[in-house]
Amino acid sequence: MMNIPQRLDALRAKMKEHGIDAYLVPTDDFHGSEYVGAYFSCRRFLTGFTGSAGTALVTGEGAYLWTDGRYFLQAQEQLADTGIVLMKMGEEGVPSIEQFVCETLKEGQTLGFDGRCMSAANADRLSSLLGKSGARTVSCTEDGPLDLVGEIWEERPALCAEKVWNLPVEYAGESRAQKLQKLRGQMSERECAYHVLASLDDIAWLLNLRGKDIPCNPVFLSYLALTPDNVLLFAQKDAFDREITGLLEKDGVRLMEYGGIYSFLRTIPEGSRVMVDSSAVNSSIWTSLDHTERISVANPTQLAKAIKNPVEMEHMRKAHIADGVALTHFIYWLKRRLGSGDSGECITELEASRKLLSFRAQQEHFLDLSFETIAAYGPHGAVIHYAPTAESDIPIRPESFLLVDSGGQYLEGTTDVTRTIACGPLSAEEKEAYTRVLRGNLNLAAARFRYGASGTAFDYLARGPLWEIGKDYNHGTGHGVGFLLNVHEGPNSFSYKQMQGRSTPCVFEEGMITSDEPGFYLEGKFGVRCENLLLCVKDQKTEYGQFMRFETLTMVPWDLDAVEPALLTEKEKALLNAYHAQVWEKISGFFEGDEKEWLREATRPV
Amino acid sequence: MMNIPQRLDALRAKMKEHGIDAYLVPTDDFHGSEYVGAYFSCRRFLTGFTGSAGTALVTGEGAYLWTDGRYFLQAQEQLADTGIVLMKMGEEGVPSIEQFVCETLKEGQTLGFDGRCMSAANADRLSSLLGKSGARTVSCTEDGPLDLVGEIWEERPALCAEKVWNLPVEYAGESRAQKLQKLRGQMSERECAYHVLASLDDIAWLLNLRGKDIPCNPVFLSYLALTPDNVLLFAQKDAFDREITGLLEKDGVRLMEYGGIYSFLRTIPEGSRVMVDSSAVNSSIWTSLDHTERISVANPTQLAKAIKNPVEMEHMRKAHIADGVALTHFIYWLKRRLGSGDSGECITELEASRKLLSFRAQQEHFLDLSFETIAAYGPHGAVIHYAPTAESDIPIRPESFLLVDSGGQYLEGTTDVTRTIACGPLSAEEKEAYTRVLRGNLNLAAARFRYGASGTAFDYLARGPLWEIGKDYNHGTGHGVGFLLNVHEGPNSFSYKQMQGRSTPCVFEEGMITSDEPGFYLEGKFGVRCENLLLCVKDQKTEYGQFMRFETLTMVPWDLDAVEPALLTEKEKALLNAYHAQVWEKISGFFEGDEKEWLREATRPV
Repeated sequence: MMNIPQRLDALRAKMKEHGIDAYLVPTDDFHGSEYVGAYFSCRRFLTGFTGSAGTALVTGEGAYLWTDGRYFLQAQEQLADTGIVLMKMGEEGVPSIEQFVCETLKEGQTLGFDGRCMSAANADRLSSLLGKSGARTVSCTEDGPLDLVGEIWEERPALCAEKVWNLPVEYAGESRAQKLQKLRGQMSERECAYHVLASLDDIAWLLNLRGKDIPCNPVFLSYLALTPDNVLLFAQKDAFDREITGLLEKDGVRLMEYGGIYSFLRTIPEGSRVMVDSSAVNSSIWTSLDHTERISVANPTQLAKAIKNPVEMEHMRKAHIADGVALTHFIYWLKRRLGSGDSGECITELEASRKLLSFRAQQEHFLDLSFETIAAYGPHGAVIHYAPTAESDIPIRPESFLLVDSGGQYLEGTTDVTRTIACGPLSAEEKEAYTRVLRGNLNLAAARFRYGASGTAFDYLARGPLWEIGKDYNHGTGHGVGFLLNVHEGPNSFSYKQMQGRSTPCVFEEGMITSDEPGFYLEGKFGVRCENLLLCVKDQKTEYGQFMRFETLTMVPWDLDAVEPALLTEKEKALLNAYHAQVWEKISGFFEGDEKEWLREATRPV
Repeated sequence: MMNIPQRLDALRAKMKEHGIDAYLVPTDDFHGSEYVGAYFSCRRFLTGFTGSAGTALVTGEGAYLWTDGRYFLQAQEQLADTGIVLMKMGEEGVPSIEQFVCETLKEGQTLGFDGRCMSAANADRLSSLLGKSGARTVSCTEDGPLDLVGEIWEERPALCAEKVWNLPVEYAGESRAQKLQKLRGQMSERECAYHVLASLDDIAWLLNLRGKDIPCNPVFLSYLALTPDNVLLFAQKDAFDREITGLLEKDGVRLMEYGGIYSFLRTIPEGSRVMVDSSAVNSSIWTSLDHTERISVANPTQLAKAIKNPVEMEHMRKAHIADGVALTHFIYWLKRRLGSGDSGECITELEASRKLLSFRAQQEHFLDLSFETIAAYGPHGAVIHYAPTAESDIPIRPESFLLVDSGGQYLEGTTDVTRTIACGPLSAEEKEAYTRVLRGNLNLAAARFRYGASGTAFDYLARGPLWEIGKDYNHGTGHGVGFLLNVHEGPNSFSYKQMQGRSTPCVFEEGMITSDEPGFYLEGKFGVRCENLLLCVKDQKTEYGQFMRFETLTMVPWDLDAVEPALLTEKEKALLNAYHAQVWEKISGFFEGDEKEWLREATRPV
């Protein structure tokens, strides 16, 4: 097996063969997925850096890796002795990838990348930036993809091809045929004869199918091409059994070879109007449509998927009760173990994660985690997105916080919840931090607003308790969540800054589910995050129009051991007590004996 | 003098002459101004409707007037017996102007309008909408403008040409030369050899000149063309005396004939890059540049003008003390008169307006009102933008509210303030409304936030107290305010809905001044609005970055007679008391005797 410098040299040899001066290796699959399967870990293979986000660039002389603040330490360690330069994104004086390639590549030089692993919109931006200095991009060869890492990766894992399964309409709430019909209506409104989808959650949602080709994301590798008469699903045929194929045929869905999408697109008649989202398809798909008239709009399935239908909403409520029971069992178990005073029996972060998984696994219809569990003790809590590994694992002691951000996939939906658990006595600083973060969570959840407000309108509620003392958290306040799909989905979000490149912010509609997760992180000391999922529902309709509010889905007690009641306003106390009364009502029936008594105490009014 | 039907017929004859099937008469001057001078009151001349907003459309058979909710009643009365159909904008089933013309005009037909009175962006939209059905727009004749109303308007007022005066750098804070240099820098960044400005406040700000060609707006009719070497000011030469001309010449500003801009633009060499904002120049300017490469970006002067420099900020504080003293004198006077019990001496809305003006006029450096004073008693308060006329004027009785929204132009800046004054005993409903609106005002003014937040992030603070009971107000929460310029200016604003057509909302910068004016309106009963101006300033800088806050400029007591303290939180009481302490500190020195005692009482802590 080659070591990292050998891999870099092998890649440089391939670059030379293809006349490429610099080669870019992003962390992406062919579908713009947030997480990628093993087959797509090219950047990891090439650099040895195992973080979930990062982009490598190899030139004739150098090699560089860009990653963000969460991974600086880890990348520094893993890149040691490889000769790869760590580029700390966002640090002063560190150029962005775009800046760097524009400064590095001279007239006539070329930047190569696999066009299947970069969105059309990004590739277009790179190409026009480089064009200014007479350099250019190359994203494929004459015969096919420009996958240079693939050419040198001898023991590359196979493409994942887990069994695809049908999500019955009793869970999906709307049939495949109805969804296809609506989407065709939207094509016809735009006078498009074709629609191309490559984003895996859009396809899974549209076809009421689920898979398991990406860890924790119940999607399957595929592309879809829709016409008024045909539905062509380009996927790995082995992943479909006869029953599924039969169901699909009934709805007019024809299964095609996964890689056949590109040649199919090139057969579309010249000048046809094709509805295709340039930020949600890869560059090779886009260029395969060069001969057509591309109408680039956000995929209509994105909004339709975000607005949960009544059946999905009702299931989501159930999933959250099951998930709340599991997490509450875990909190009780942890508190008891920590309170037993038996220090010889100390639990580590990884053990806690596994225990939590076992509680979830006991719930009916539990399928999988919805993302890798974050169980971060003490100072680890300040590392946003920390997930324990064998190397980083530390014991949980009876003091400070354990921050647990986790979620499950159930037949009834997807959950995502963070509880920050007091493991023992807390300092005044820790209590104040917890209370301020909780205030933000409660105030946002209690928002009542007129229809038309979008996610930029609410952040003050969540951040206000921190902003007023010059503190903050360096992440968004909330993201959309799928129905038995990806735990991160758009277009809804809570953020005081508008997402780049989106022309108008997404208005909150009934049925949208968004996380409410303010936090506070003190480096080297502790982290706090309080996260519930909020379902947007209709409130009263008055002479001013429709008013909206949020219904909290998550049903797990907050930690009253960490709350400083003197820092709460009367209104906030009432909100906290009302939430706890609801938690008791919804989940106490699943508890018995001492545990039930503990739950009663944990949900007592303050 | 012709009556309205005769005017319509005369217009139709002109339309026939020019082969026009429908003719549009908006309320606009050649500069996209919010208010227009008498010369530009074509819509008013044609229809007899005197409201400040409205658009007329005349076809071979019909005539139509679109206006918004504020003017439905007034328009109905004024259009009676004219044959003009009132089109109530926003009412169900009422088509928009665009929809109407698209439905009305058939293939080959033409919609005419004076291209100088419509923004290029709007004209372009109309043209492409009509193009779908094969109709088209005509906005000029072969020889010049298509001003058909002008052709039939015999006693048309002359163009206003008030004296233009120089605003010394001690007030402007930055010299004309410096401003021109910066703007040229921005042209050169965009590689533009020309820049064309038509918006009057941009030109006045850029050249440190002021005029009086629009009531309450200290601007002067002009266009400006900037090149790396020349500044051409197209304006009415009579309005400039020798001294001003000399000052301008020293800075390289050449005075040209007002109407000469169009022919000048046509002489720009073909293909030149011209920086020009399609939403801030009229359609005739835009088409005069058809042979050039137009780079349409928001005028850089818009943002520069919105960010007040330290000299402007300091002057604005002074202007607000003077204005606060005047308005406080007025409130005392009104309360005393109403409390005297002498009902024979009752004051009307118009008398109150005049009295308020007299108090302002006593202040040093007072130049003009910044807009027509709204003095709305009782039910009139619920009519947003009501301003009393001889016909509508009613007496103020010792009960209910007088809503006074007014402002002044001073050498030190522009003010805009609303006080809702308890004229006598109030009902519980009135007090609750006042208190909720005041809470919104106080909470918004107290916002402390991280740099990067824009105007959509704060509305919840202002609207929350109403939204939580299903109430609201149908206007924005706040608008930008100029420095001795227009009382409404962009790009800063407070609004939970993003402005249409703006791709990213405006981030709050130090030096921006924005009104904070929540309200509540109960039709047929009363209206409440609480308005202060807020200056955005830097707060602490922490490890998270720069934090920002607002400094309240307006210094006038709220009406404690209208406040129900039981409805305020402790925090809100503290905010109210802190504001009143500041008002006392800043303005009490200008009061004596009984009036000072009254002010002490009016600013007492609750």
